[in-house]
Amino acid sequence: MRLKALREEVLEANLEVVRRGLVLYTFGNASGMDRQSGVVAIKPSGVAYDQLRAADLVLVDLEGRVVEGVLRPSSDLATHLVLYRSFPGIGGVAHTHSRFATAWAQARREIPCLGTTHADYFRGPIPITEPLAADEISGSYEENTGLAIVRRLRDLDPAQIPGALVAGHGPFCWGPTAAGAAHLAVLVEEIAALAHLTISLNPGAPDLSEAQRDQHFDRKHGSGAYYGQNTQR
Amino acid sequence: MRLKALREEVLEANLEVVRRGLVLYTFGNASGMDRQSGVVAIKPSGVAYDQLRAADLVLVDLEGRVVEGVLRPSSDLATHLVLYRSFPGIGGVAHTHSRFATAWAQARREIPCLGTTHADYFRGPIPITEPLAADEISGSYEENTGLAIVRRLRDLDPAQIPGALVAGHGPFCWGPTAAGAAHLAVLVEEIAALAHLTISLNPGAPDLSEAQRDQHFDRKHGSGAYYGQNTQR
Amino acid sequence: MRLKALREEVLEANLEVVRRGLVLYTFGNASGMDRQSGVVAIKPSGVAYDQLRAADLVLVDLEGRVVEGVLRPSSDLATHLVLYRSFPGIGGVAHTHSRFATAWAQARREIPCLGTTHADYFRGPIPITEPLAADEISGSYEENTGLAIVRRLRDLDPAQIPGALVAGHGPFCWGPTAAGAAHLAVLVEEIAALAHLTISLNPGAPDLSEAQRDQHFDRKHGSGAYYGQNTQR
Amino acid sequence: MRLKALREEVLEANLEVVRRGLVLYTFGNASGMDRQSGVVAIKPSGVAYDQLRAADLVLVDLEGRVVEGVLRPSSDLATHLVLYRSFPGIGGVAHTHSRFATAWAQARREIPCLGTTHADYFRGPIPITEPLAADEISGSYEENTGLAIVRRLRDLDPAQIPGALVAGHGPFCWGPTAAGAAHLAVLVEEIAALAHLTISLNPGAPDLSEAQRDQHFDRKHGSGAYYGQNTQR
Repeated sequence: MRLKALREEVLEANLEVVRRGLVLYTFGNASGMDRQSGVVAIKPSGVAYDQLRAADLVLVDLEGRVVEGVLRPSSDLATHLVLYRSFPGIGGVAHTHSRFATAWAQARREIPCLGTTHADYFRGPIPITEPLAADEISGSYEENTGLAIVRRLRDLDPAQIPGALVAGHGPFCWGPTAAGAAHLAVLVEEIAALAHLTISLNPGAPDLSEAQRDQHFDRKHGSGAYYGQNTQR
Repeated sequence: MRLKALREEVLEANLEVVRRGLVLYTFGNASGMDRQSGVVAIKPSGVAYDQLRAADLVLVDLEGRVVEGVLRPSSDLATHLVLYRSFPGIGGVAHTHSRFATAWAQARREIPCLGTTHADYFRGPIPITEPLAADEISGSYEENTGLAIVRRLRDLDPAQIPGALVAGHGPFCWGPTAAGAAHLAVLVEEIAALAHLTISLNPGAPDLSEAQRDQHFDRKHGSGAYYGQNTQR
Repeated sequence: MRLKALREEVLEANLEVVRRGLVLYTFGNASGMDRQSGVVAIKPSGVAYDQLRAADLVLVDLEGRVVEGVLRPSSDLATHLVLYRSFPGIGGVAHTHSRFATAWAQARREIPCLGTTHADYFRGPIPITEPLAADEISGSYEENTGLAIVRRLRDLDPAQIPGALVAGHGPFCWGPTAAGAAHLAVLVEEIAALAHLTISLNPGAPDLSEAQRDQHFDRKHGSGAYYGQNTQR
Repeated sequence: MRLKALREEVLEANLEVVRRGLVLYTFGNASGMDRQSGVVAIKPSGVAYDQLRAADLVLVDLEGRVVEGVLRPSSDLATHLVLYRSFPGIGGVAHTHSRFATAWAQARREIPCLGTTHADYFRGPIPITEPLAADEISGSYEENTGLAIVRRLRDLDPAQIPGALVAGHGPFCWGPTAAGAAHLAVLVEEIAALAHLTISLNPGAPDLSEAQRDQHFDRKHGSGAYYGQNTQR
């Protein structure tokens, strides 16, 4: 029953990034993890989204061994698994090639925190990984991509910096659930678009002050949150 | 009866900014005020627009005391209330994070009056607030945001400059009604997009002459207006 | 009967620029002229496009005297009439505030002929008017806007340069019919977008050679045309 | 029967580029070739896509002689035929004026390989042709356009560089089938958009390393491919 629900949630997360215009053809992938059973559900590789059913998702354990499913999992599976193993608080991962976020990744620039839209979701810049060395590419490429993200997050809290850009590739986002990760993928694209336009209007646009950044992040997250209907005042 | 009509109009104003593509998820909020009863209707915080009903709107007085409604009002309510208290001629306020207008706000630049599309709605640049000081952020943040707008408008006529950018945040617009404020939010986004493209083609693009700016503003507003079907010639 | 057909064609031309995304709210206007009867049909001022019916169009003569119709004609009528009086070969005019073309008009730059998409429709740059003097704005503003276009076209053939940018305002296009003018308004927006992106990639991008420009223009126009199904080889 | 299937596939390829937003009015054209019979099917010139039926396609041989069909073939037919004659491994060609790819062509710049989205489809930059000389334009213009592409591809493998920009014009793409060529036309537009945004964020953005470029290309192509469900591991 739990795995059936996981399948449904991961299917929905994959469809959400499509609905929001972040996906061309079969690009991108979202996964979710049931921490209790240790099972990860992920999109199969190269399947058209409009034909994707919950039953097509591939269920694997944290080492990538298939638990259920006949299709080949997303080629980025190993990256997702590194994130689940390294960030015990997360339950979902989403990866896209969305246009603006990918442009920042290709430009090899982190996304500075220029406004409150950004600060509502990230307590600081959206970081970018170091490029992989040649031997990290030739062997276990996807796993090494995940390790590059984890290295970049070393001194950061993945709950406060819930995503990163992989240099020359695109964004990976994570959250407590697959739905949360997909939601963040949509936000990262919007934040990337806003920052691109901002920089083109003013290459020296200042970062939001730390006080205002934290005010916005805390307004939406943690025990003092007062945004929305489900938080306690 | 009046409050029922107010609810309907404010609901419609909130949906208009969604229909025009200015809103991602639950971003933004529009409100309207019935000056006779002193009641303001505003969107509840963090509720999905496709589930929003007139009955969900929160009714408050000018001090923010709830008159009707069980949901928590928008977290930006205090900003709206400052505007209603300071600009007695207005009956609606709309706030969005629309992409181009937010980019100008993040770039910390006012939007110059570069063409007739702008001059049809604003008799001059769309101004931008000063950044808030740390102590304005740590206490009564949303109210201080409103006060920063009012300070910036001090020597301007809110009927002729019906909106402003909050530095590092995004646009707030106002008008005689909630519908008018929402309409202006859509226009501010278009004006911001046009100005962005213009500046990228010619960083030194000149302002519209004052004569042409006033010709266009007056063509649509005031006793000499001759645009549309409901104006007197 | 002829005027009924004219109404239908002008309605359709107005709706075409809306369908193509060139119009926000009630912006823009298209007109058509029946040269035999000397009657011009034009959109009424400030009427919502989704409520516009053929019967709402206003019929005027070349001096602007109403022939049929109860609504006030577009405030830009006088500009259209100057074009009909000055360019006897045209039968339609379309004016929009479409985003990219308006940005070039606000940037006070003509659109250079950078590629074959442009050359398929314009045998040379899309010209821009000189700014109006203060006394041209204070009296007969819309007529003077038309005269500025005609002055700019003085040494050009309006059949080969079927549109112009009005400085600080936006594009006006014309063609043998209202449908042709609307079609050109859509093309001018696309050409303006292509040129904007081109210039941002290479500020010194060269013009298309005259030979290639003429090859493309002649492939679609005139006695040697061989594009489409209705031309003679 | 084979030619009926060819017609259907070429119709679908033409419609695919329309669905993906690459086409304005009657711009662009896709063709497919049945190598066994030596027949090429191509879109007729200037026919509206929403009225296009499989029966409207024009069937020609490699010298352009009509085999079946009453309509005039696309004016770019001769360019397609040069590609089929020069690249024996291809079975489809697609040409568009899609916005970002055309901007690169007008800017006279090849598209550098800045990221993995690009490397998934092209093992290197997307090349751009030399401009045509005046005498190449005045006679056999479309054929000379094809020859310019072939010259530019001389030292490249058309299976690994499945498209090129024609200077001042737009992209041509090819693939094993008409569907494959149309798919590449969509990808080239996305790659061009990503590269445009990347360059505007960082004019000196580095190329993807050769190791990572080849890793991505080989992940999707050839005997070692492991993306999707139809490849062998």
